[in-house]
Amino acid sequence: MRLAEPLLRKGVRVYDIAFWKSTKEKPLHRAGREIHYPPVVDLLDPYILLVHQGMVESTFEDDLRERGVVVTRNTAFTNVRYTPEKVRPLTVDCMQDVSQTTKSFGARYVVGTDGAHSKVRKCIPNSTPVGASSDSIWGVLDGVLDTNFPDIWSKVVIHSDKLGSVLMIPRERNLTRLYIEMKPNSDEVNLKERHTQEFVQQRAQDIMQPYRLKWRSVEWFGRYQIGQRVACRFTDPEQRVYIAGDASHTHSPKAAQGMNTSMHDSWNLAWKLNFAVRELAKPVLMDTYEQERKKIAQDLIDFDYEHANAFAEGDSQALADNFAKNVAFISGYGVSYGLNVLNMHSSSWNNRGNLTPGFLLPPAKVTRFIDANPVDIQTDIPALGQFRIYFFANDAIAALPFLDTVSNAHISTASYVGRVTQVANASYTSQPPLAAPHDQFVCPERYTPVSGVFTYALVTAERGTLEIEHLPHILRESTFSIYLDDIPEKDTRGQSCRQKWLDGLAGNEVVVVNVRPDGYVGCLRRFSDGGRESGAEAVEWLDRYYEGFLRDM
Amino acid sequence: MRLAEPLLRKGVRVYDIAFWKSTKEKPLHRAGREIHYPPVVDLLDPYILLVHQGMVESTFEDDLRERGVVVTRNTAFTNVRYTPEKVRPLTVDCMQDVSQTTKSFGARYVVGTDGAHSKVRKCIPNSTPVGASSDSIWGVLDGVLDTNFPDIWSKVVIHSDKLGSVLMIPRERNLTRLYIEMKPNSDEVNLKERHTQEFVQQRAQDIMQPYRLKWRSVEWFGRYQIGQRVACRFTDPEQRVYIAGDASHTHSPKAAQGMNTSMHDSWNLAWKLNFAVRELAKPVLMDTYEQERKKIAQDLIDFDYEHANAFAEGDSQALADNFAKNVAFISGYGVSYGLNVLNMHSSSWNNRGNLTPGFLLPPAKVTRFIDANPVDIQTDIPALGQFRIYFFANDAIAALPFLDTVSNAHISTASYVGRVTQVANASYTSQPPLAAPHDQFVCPERYTPVSGVFTYALVTAERGTLEIEHLPHILRESTFSIYLDDIPEKDTRGQSCRQKWLDGLAGNEVVVVNVRPDGYVGCLRRFSDGGRESGAEAVEWLDRYYEGFLRDM
Repeated sequence: MRLAEPLLRKGVRVYDIAFWKSTKEKPLHRAGREIHYPPVVDLLDPYILLVHQGMVESTFEDDLRERGVVVTRNTAFTNVRYTPEKVRPLTVDCMQDVSQTTKSFGARYVVGTDGAHSKVRKCIPNSTPVGASSDSIWGVLDGVLDTNFPDIWSKVVIHSDKLGSVLMIPRERNLTRLYIEMKPNSDEVNLKERHTQEFVQQRAQDIMQPYRLKWRSVEWFGRYQIGQRVACRFTDPEQRVYIAGDASHTHSPKAAQGMNTSMHDSWNLAWKLNFAVRELAKPVLMDTYEQERKKIAQDLIDFDYEHANAFAEGDSQALADNFAKNVAFISGYGVSYGLNVLNMHSSSWNNRGNLTPGFLLPPAKVTRFIDANPVDIQTDIPALGQFRIYFFANDAIAALPFLDTVSNAHISTASYVGRVTQVANASYTSQPPLAAPHDQFVCPERYTPVSGVFTYALVTAERGTLEIEHLPHILRESTFSIYLDDIPEKDTRGQSCRQKWLDGLAGNEVVVVNVRPDGYVGCLRRFSDGGRESGAEAVEWLDRYYEGFLRDM
Repeated sequence: MRLAEPLLRKGVRVYDIAFWKSTKEKPLHRAGREIHYPPVVDLLDPYILLVHQGMVESTFEDDLRERGVVVTRNTAFTNVRYTPEKVRPLTVDCMQDVSQTTKSFGARYVVGTDGAHSKVRKCIPNSTPVGASSDSIWGVLDGVLDTNFPDIWSKVVIHSDKLGSVLMIPRERNLTRLYIEMKPNSDEVNLKERHTQEFVQQRAQDIMQPYRLKWRSVEWFGRYQIGQRVACRFTDPEQRVYIAGDASHTHSPKAAQGMNTSMHDSWNLAWKLNFAVRELAKPVLMDTYEQERKKIAQDLIDFDYEHANAFAEGDSQALADNFAKNVAFISGYGVSYGLNVLNMHSSSWNNRGNLTPGFLLPPAKVTRFIDANPVDIQTDIPALGQFRIYFFANDAIAALPFLDTVSNAHISTASYVGRVTQVANASYTSQPPLAAPHDQFVCPERYTPVSGVFTYALVTAERGTLEIEHLPHILRESTFSIYLDDIPEKDTRGQSCRQKWLDGLAGNEVVVVNVRPDGYVGCLRRFSDGGRESGAEAVEWLDRYYEGFLRDM
């Protein structure tokens, strides 16, 4: 599935943020305007894309439906319990909403994405959410404005010393979203009769004086009452029951981090569960889910706390500073995982270049060898639940002995990686991924011709006399992931991929980069030359890395 | 409708072209490789996008359906005749295929897009196609290849001195298209039993020796027999009956110019017909359809003749030279119209910059004022059948007297343009364009707040202290077409829009550019300053231009 395109068509892109302010001394005025994602964050798409959450959900649901999976609604989870049955050790109890009929079924795994009051969470021992003692309260309003306020197509923060703050966000179909927080520690928080659409509209109008603010139509009004809390556990000790999204963490609705963070929870969990279901995962791999995503939930709340304070204080400079500090995090690009069994520094690595284990790949442009297409290398290989192993060499022909050594080891059972491939391929043969008709335009089979678990890729300086048939098996078969690093002028920063990612390669150096199925850098290592001995070192190093969390039998 | 995105997802992009050759002296070898659209052509998307014609048709048909228009099939046109009835002067006779029932209905206009053997064409006096005396014959094959030929994901021309040529084109879903021409002036052309799939496959295999060439599957085989001819007339003397596409011109299926040229026929005709239907067009406007599109059909055949000769001779150098010469034409970017009532040189114009009447707008990047979005100015304003009037000024505030003068004239009936707007707005009010639900994401109403026939736009150097509320009416209401020319670094050639389009502006110069509804430059003129007197000159000049082909009552 390629998520972005249908949404891009229907979404609204926001590039800048305007700060407005009114104080006792000076009536409402524009205090500043900033670009939202300054070049310090290396983004290919340096904007916020605003789309109705329903569109995102439909995109996922349409894709599922085309693969034969239908989401069952009106069925409430009530309980999950372990039963002494081997294949499906869990029994899930549900209640059908309409008939209130109780229904039970067996399952191998359960993932609870059932929101802040998650019942699945309650089935996980010691998972109580902890965090803020009191809830904050927000009014949110979507409507078409009739206004002479000039900046409604930017993201706008408006602060009145006297009346509090409004956050305005442009939306699709001419809509504008307004957020308004009930003043903390005031009567407003307690007087529930004030938490109405009329109250929020009146408050916004008062803050935006002297600008005209009326509504041509109101599409939706909502009230959030939210505490910032993180569940103590995201999984049960048996690693069969998981929670994700609001079920595992809640926070205030600013900075568009709610749905995004929740999708990333699922994204992190999904590929690991796929390996678990195929019996390719060691328990330590499943441990990384809670480890990694709990950190992010905590990072998010820490950011939000600072952000909310700056926002409530109406200090546009503090808010701008807070943004600048956190802009990488807000963009998603700086959301990163700590070191663990997946994200490892290799002993010889000295942190040159812009690849860091636990971080995403920065954007880089290369030419795809087979069809001369300029592509975004960081996303060119479709995400099929597989790792990517990239080989970098200035001169691919000089590196042939290295590549040949790795290839021979990886297509035989002499290496751990080769054995994982053998087991995985058997699993993918007996239980292939669910296919959809539109897969034929992506041709997923191009990216796993050797192994269901690894896509092999090569990045080299130039075409020269190289033909794909010269390459050893693992790369010769990977015809759509051979790249020429020859279009630095198309990069966000004018750098070649080798320069940006690796601070360049000297002479015949070879660098091997392992990228996780979710696009995060796993580990990477520099080898002094393209010879067989270095290749043998690489084989051993790769075996050690993958042996850390994958099973070979 | 935004055509490109769903097709981009499913299409194949071709960036380069490979030339292969075998002679008596040297077996099959790669004689060269070129990028398809070299930087000499200023393209935003410098590739060929290959998509199944059915997808293009569906995109159009889906859009029509969402606007309530259903294409009636299985109904064959038989005749059209004039009847003395005023509103619908044409009577169209049809035959329903299944039941062979005859059916007649009244119409105001008829457009025949009924192919090379067009029956509508036969109803247009003196329209006989003229051109080549004999037809050329082509075999075309779509299939999934099993081959070790290395370049099948490029466009490939393979020529064997002995056996002729094959043209290979990559397609979606792993398909490869093969074109093979029956050797002209040989037995092959006459021996119809040779025009089979097996013959084409065998010929391709023979030419591609020693490479393996087998078919995993064949999706389609077709045989084209085509003469290169152009109809003498594209419309009847009453300007009620038109032909477009293959009905008006036929040519060999190379260089992907068939469907493209036909769509451009319709594109050229559609907006003119819209004006005719609304009684806003003078007869001279309708004359431009045949004038403009007949030239293109002839240009295409001239190109094709040269191209086919170079191809048949297997001279890869000649073919490359022919491509280089015609690359702008093939890309569509260089397809241009001659001077006429729509495409005019203003007397003071000295051809500085890259805008030429009768040519498309070169790509340029600007920032949209209202929401800080970087946009492609040449396509940012949606095509709604309206002209675009762009004002360029380094300093918009200094140009306010000029802009104010034009605005006042254009919102009153003192100017011809203002009177056209008045009549047009009445027409669009009583007969609005057919709407589709997805229009709400485009918000067409943003672009015609002043006039159904003109979108006003402003391009200026920088934001400075400018607010949209400072601008005179026609621009103040055009909030989504005010642009800042401040991101030359995002341009294909690193130029600002003013630099690229106009060779820059000196001091307070103002340039006015009229762009036709189909995106071609109409006319443009440079004014010495932003004063009221220059503004009055502009009003008069604009009146003269639009009076040439639009009616004001």
